[in-house]
This record gives sequence, structure tokens and C-alpha cells, in this order.
Amino acid sequence: MTQTPSSVLSSDYPVSERCRLRRNPKRAVTDRAAVHAVLDAGLQCAVGYVFDGEPYVTQTAYWREGERVYWHGSSASQMIRRLKGGIPVCFTASILDGLVFARSGFHHSFNYRSVVAHGIAQEVTQPAEKLARLKAFTDRLAPGRWEEMRPPTEQEMKATTVLALALDEISCKIREGGPVDDADDMDAPIWAGVVPVALVLGTSITDPESRIANAPANCLGTRLG
Amino acid sequence: MTQTPSSVLSSDYPVSERCRLRRNPKRAVTDRAAVHAVLDAGLQCAVGYVFDGEPYVTQTAYWREGERVYWHGSSASQMIRRLKGGIPVCFTASILDGLVFARSGFHHSFNYRSVVAHGIAQEVTQPAEKLARLKAFTDRLAPGRWEEMRPPTEQEMKATTVLALALDEISCKIREGGPVDDADDMDAPIWAGVVPVALVLGTSITDPESRIANAPANCLGTRLG
Repeated sequence: MTQTPSSVLSSDYPVSERCRLRRNPKRAVTDRAAVHAVLDAGLQCAVGYVFDGEPYVTQTAYWREGERVYWHGSSASQMIRRLKGGIPVCFTASILDGLVFARSGFHHSFNYRSVVAHGIAQEVTQPAEKLARLKAFTDRLAPGRWEEMRPPTEQEMKATTVLALALDEISCKIREGGPVDDADDMDAPIWAGVVPVALVLGTSITDPESRIANAPANCLGTRLG
Repeated sequence: MTQTPSSVLSSDYPVSERCRLRRNPKRAVTDRAAVHAVLDAGLQCAVGYVFDGEPYVTQTAYWREGERVYWHGSSASQMIRRLKGGIPVCFTASILDGLVFARSGFHHSFNYRSVVAHGIAQEVTQPAEKLARLKAFTDRLAPGRWEEMRPPTEQEMKATTVLALALDEISCKIREGGPVDDADDMDAPIWAGVVPVALVLGTSITDPESRIANAPANCLGTRLG
């Protein structure tokens, strides 16, 4: 799998008919750097596919490198085995940023950043590339930790499958800011505003058998949101 | 839509072939109360369906009442219009609880609680029931706020669609606790443990035009996770 050099890419993603936002098109984001920023802020994705005519969705962790998103899983997992067959996939990542309290029920909303990508996932098979991708995933969660651990065994590599999806057909949507209410409701005697929400790290819990007593900085520095 | 009286339900969900957990079956949860607790802790779901043979996934907010999950949206939304047609849907809700740092890359994991439900969503059409469902959603986010607001107009009700999915065919999976490492790795000089993560509420931001200066307790008491 070769990557298109970013120098030949337009700074905006093209908009396919399937990915054109029909509702609230003003929330659409096409700038590559902005879309990358949303993808890099997220950690969990939902991956949808069709099997036997029925829809299936699996939520899992992902990471982005260049113009691809990646996820991994047990080579024995149903989702992985089905997607390895080269079937269409819908990837979505969505970050919840806030609860928007409006003056009417109707205008309540959420602030969020989301990306949808359509395509066919490809397995990363080349051993060195696969290792590099898994290292990148580890670095996303704990920079430097990969080098602190023993390398994966051949058996572990076989038991793990890495899938890649090119960001060829995407849409990105961001809702931010306060409530947008009807003019007639503005004097309603009710609080209006936003309560931000964010995924945050808590206090680390050291495994009773850990030979190191305290979590190092790289395990506590994960970027979330 | 009548609800099966809970008195005739077994305390466990049945396990369909499609929903049987093949990987890590020890993480499976079938107890209804435990599954309800996971669903009630989540706020965001991913809804997958098939259209023109292709997979689509939409992330949106949901709530649970009894043996159903509900989500809503603009009646003009593509997802809503397609699902109203009565096509199979895969609903997933997943709550990330922690980053699990193991002694090898292979055994790194996430703590999470997740539910998958398959079925056909039904539109809630009866006006009084639809109002009751929307009130329940508001109550889930801000108990008591529904009564503080003007009632929805007929036009707003028309512009909003509520969908229900019966929890007839579900699977639920919970991963909790610390890393599970290979015996040979236990002495590795590397920190092992869990960094909890949680979605938390931040400091409220009052709309500049709000007639009430401070967010009331019910807007700040949303249960997340």
C-alpha cells in the first residue's frame, strides 16, 4: 500500500454525493487539517458493514496516520475476518463536546465533532509496516512505551490484524457554540447555555504485581478529545 | 406499540446465534438489570443500517425505557427516513472506562461496557406517547427541565421523529480490571495498570442572552458513564 504524497492532495477533501451533508450543511468541514484534527482527538470509532444482507456495527479503537485511519483486532474476530474479505465499510468517529440547553426542547442540541468515511478496508500485511502501525497506535496512547516493551512475538503478530481505510470519501461535521433559539423564546425565564463534556483521565491504578510503583508520564499523557 | 410486561420476562436476555460472543465469552453479560445499567450509563450510540447494499452508520444520542432503546432526529434526516421504512438496524452503545497498560503490547486493552442490539426500529407515532418519550429523554439529561419549558408546537413535533428498538436480540460485553499478562512477562521492568477514563461535565457556559445567570442543578446533574 503506497500513500498518495500529501503534496499532490488538495487542502480540502472532495465531497461525494453520498457524503454531502444535507442537514445543517453549514456544519460541514472539508479542510484536511481540520478533519485530521478531529480524527486525532478521537479514540473510539464505530465500524459498520453488511453481512448476509444485515447491518453490523463494532465499536473499537482507531488511530490516524496520513490519509488513512487504522484499527486492529484479534485475527479471529468476526468483524476482522469479514472486513478482510474486502467489503464496503462505514467508519464513524464522534466526539461529544457539550450539552446545549436551549429555551425550548426542540432547540436542545449537542456540541460534537464527527467524521464518517466510506470505503473498503485493507489489511496491513507487510510485517515491517504492520509493526510500524502498531507502534504508532501505542505512541498515540503512550508515546515512547513501544520501546520500553519487549517486541511482539511472531505468534502475537499473527493473532493481530491491522486494517487500514483510506480517507478517500469522507464527511466531517462540527457543531459548536451556544443554543440557537427562536426569537419568540428569548425572554423565557429558563437558563440557556452549554455544559461542556469531555473524556478525561482519572487517577491511575497500579497493578498489584507491577514491578514499577507509579504510572509514568507517558501513560498519563494520552490526548483525549 | 405495547411493551411486554416485565413480570413475564426472564431475568436474563436470551442469546441468539448472531449475538453469541465468540471472542472472550467470559465478558458476556445477559442479566437484564446489568444490561439496563450499561445502557443507562451511555448517552451516545452508533446506529448501522444497509441502504442500496452499502453500510451506513450514524452516531446520535439515545435513551432507554423498559425493554426499548430510543433515539430521535429530524424527520428530514436521511437516517431517520430510511429507518422509518422498517429495515434491519444494528444499535451499539459503548462506554470507554479505562486504558489498560500491560507488560507487552499484545495484552494492552481497554476497559469498556458495550451493548449491541439487532432488530427493526419502529417510529413512535402516537402523539401522547411521543411526547412522553421526548420528556423521558429530557429527564435523562436534565430532570424537571421539561416542565420548565413551553410545550413543543405541532410543527416541532412533526419535524421530530422518535424511533424505538426493542431489546429482543442483544449482546452485552464488559471488560474491567487490570492487565492480564503472560507469566513470562510479569517481571518486566515496566509499569502495569489501568488509567481510568470517564466522560465528565465541565463548567457551564451561560448564553450571553440567557435571562437566568447560572446553570441550575438539573442541567449539571446529567449522569454520564
